Amino acid sequence: MENGETKTPPKSWAMVGGDGPRSYAQNSSYQRGLLDVVNELINEGIKDKLDFKSPCSDSSNICTFRIADFGCSAGPNTFLAMEKIMEAVEQKYQAQFQNSPPLEFQVFFNDVTANDFNTLFKTLPSYQKYFAAGVPGTFYGRLFPKSTLHLACSSYSLHWLSKVPEEVVDTKSPAWNKGSIQCSGTAKEVAKAYSAQFKTDMDNFLNARSQEIIGGGLMVIIILGLPDGILMSQTLAGICNELFGSCLIDMAKLGVISEEKVDSFNLPLYYSSAKELEEIIKNNGHFCIERMNMLNHPMMKRKLDVQFVILQFRAIYQALLEEHFGRDDVDKIFEYFAKKFADNYKG
Amino acid sequence: MENGETKTPPKSWAMVGGDGPRSYAQNSSYQRGLLDVVNELINEGIKDKLDFKSPCSDSSNICTFRIADFGCSAGPNTFLAMEKIMEAVEQKYQAQFQNSPPLEFQVFFNDVTANDFNTLFKTLPSYQKYFAAGVPGTFYGRLFPKSTLHLACSSYSLHWLSKVPEEVVDTKSPAWNKGSIQCSGTAKEVAKAYSAQFKTDMDNFLNARSQEIIGGGLMVIIILGLPDGILMSQTLAGICNELFGSCLIDMAKLGVISEEKVDSFNLPLYYSSAKELEEIIKNNGHFCIERMNMLNHPMMKRKLDVQFVILQFRAIYQALLEEHFGRDDVDKIFEYFAKKFADNYKG
Repeated sequence: MENGETKTPPKSWAMVGGDGPRSYAQNSSYQRGLLDVVNELINEGIKDKLDFKSPCSDSSNICTFRIADFGCSAGPNTFLAMEKIMEAVEQKYQAQFQNSPPLEFQVFFNDVTANDFNTLFKTLPSYQKYFAAGVPGTFYGRLFPKSTLHLACSSYSLHWLSKVPEEVVDTKSPAWNKGSIQCSGTAKEVAKAYSAQFKTDMDNFLNARSQEIIGGGLMVIIILGLPDGILMSQTLAGICNELFGSCLIDMAKLGVISEEKVDSFNLPLYYSSAKELEEIIKNNGHFCIERMNMLNHPMMKRKLDVQFVILQFRAIYQALLEEHFGRDDVDKIFEYFAKKFADNYKG
Repeated sequence: MENGETKTPPKSWAMVGGDGPRSYAQNSSYQRGLLDVVNELINEGIKDKLDFKSPCSDSSNICTFRIADFGCSAGPNTFLAMEKIMEAVEQKYQAQFQNSPPLEFQVFFNDVTANDFNTLFKTLPSYQKYFAAGVPGTFYGRLFPKSTLHLACSSYSLHWLSKVPEEVVDTKSPAWNKGSIQCSGTAKEVAKAYSAQFKTDMDNFLNARSQEIIGGGLMVIIILGLPDGILMSQTLAGICNELFGSCLIDMAKLGVISEEKVDSFNLPLYYSSAKELEEIIKNNGHFCIERMNMLNHPMMKRKLDVQFVILQFRAIYQALLEEHFGRDDVDKIFEYFAKKFADNYKG
């Protein structure tokens, strides 16, 4: 669990592709920052919990170890994460079976079909010591044959819902989220709708993975969340989203974008508490929680950099906004946001 | 083996991506035409030769059947071919094991890294009954872990060499192919150089696949080739290539493109005879030839359609030409070719 920024979406849009100045590939250093923090935890998990009975089929004396990254986006963070995991698996394997044939790794990079797999593939490290494959499709459904993965991971992805809960954009519903674009936590009915969607999605994710991961395998989930008792509206991400939402409202009032479009726009994003997530996993029943840590991002204490935030927002939200508002309006929205954000966070 | 047009390249360029009017996706009906002819042969091969001991791991009672298409391009032909293969495998499996759990299929679509996987993934049939993955990289090297594929196929791809043999563009070599852009078959030294490259590439392909395909598995290769005693310069494809080469020479003489660039350009393409291919496979020793057929394309007897040929040439050669001549010149080259071709093949 970590408090902060966001990544991969589950439905028909994705992070900004390519490797230009506005791409996710060039604007994901924040997400990468956490990798160092979690590496040690992942190493420990692999050392203590990974059960190596399964990867080697006794009959053929051949060892293939399959890893999948669910919500990989277009790199390069996913490559670094996969390499660290493979190092840890390799070490454990060497220690446990001195005279066994070398492990061969097959790494599956998954993200939605709209993800820029072309850029992902073109930026695969050339020294790559594994067999790479891309898997398109939502991770809220099945993506692999039964019992074929040894290790699954998902980083900065599962706080993206499969969709915005219908009630929050339904003007007739008590959960209508008028005047806000996110689950700020202050409106009870809105929070309930978002929480229910999160539970449905997590259940679908866990059910699918439980079919795909072999017994004795491991799953690592890095997800954005909230400390107990803290509302989304009290976090930096929540404050930035709120400011972004206020820009949309301003622009609707100015007649630049349609008010109806603003009213029907909400972020398909939910930050759960550790307790809520723990309950969902326990009730689901397919996985045991071996370890659960609240992480602090090393950049949390850094001074807010306006340009950095704008680029992050654009890399992450652009496709989502284009789908809803159309391409032309999105440029105007980001221009307006950059100005208002700079005004609000002057030196 | 089939005589006719061409598909997937092995190195840094690929068929034209996307699904626009000039894309390979929209200009591969010729290649699709052959699918109907080969389907019956593939069905027979699967029925008679596929050994089903392996796909089901006895311990887990789970059946995953893995298929890979080497040189898939951006669809849609590959989807149709894979579906037909799965139907045949399913039929054989049902007949052989009445009460076994259903097979789950994992299909790997392979092509060079420059291939348009984004379009491939976006056009995956929505009713797809298999787990799909894309695998980037040249099929002249390893792409999968050991013994993990049950069936491999490669269609319209292996006549693409990994590179143009160096001697044929070396002005000091006796194999220098001055005045031609292909292995027309008339110059002995040129043919020798092309043939040697084809043998090296095929060996690399067979060695890699022999590691990846499990015992009892099958491989289906559809490749363009020459009937015994026929030279490339005597085939329709050879004649079209020769005409295309003459356009480059014309344009160099007119000063539109550089003569040096024309001299250093050859197609990385080799049509072998059935006998030559058979010898390579036998000498390689990793695979038995269960069946080898010379196929006649249903469109072979069709009247030559100028527009059709131009679009085919563009979908297939554009990226290759852009890499060598630069983007601007390629448009001029195709304009000139269209005109000269039309002049030569007037109704």
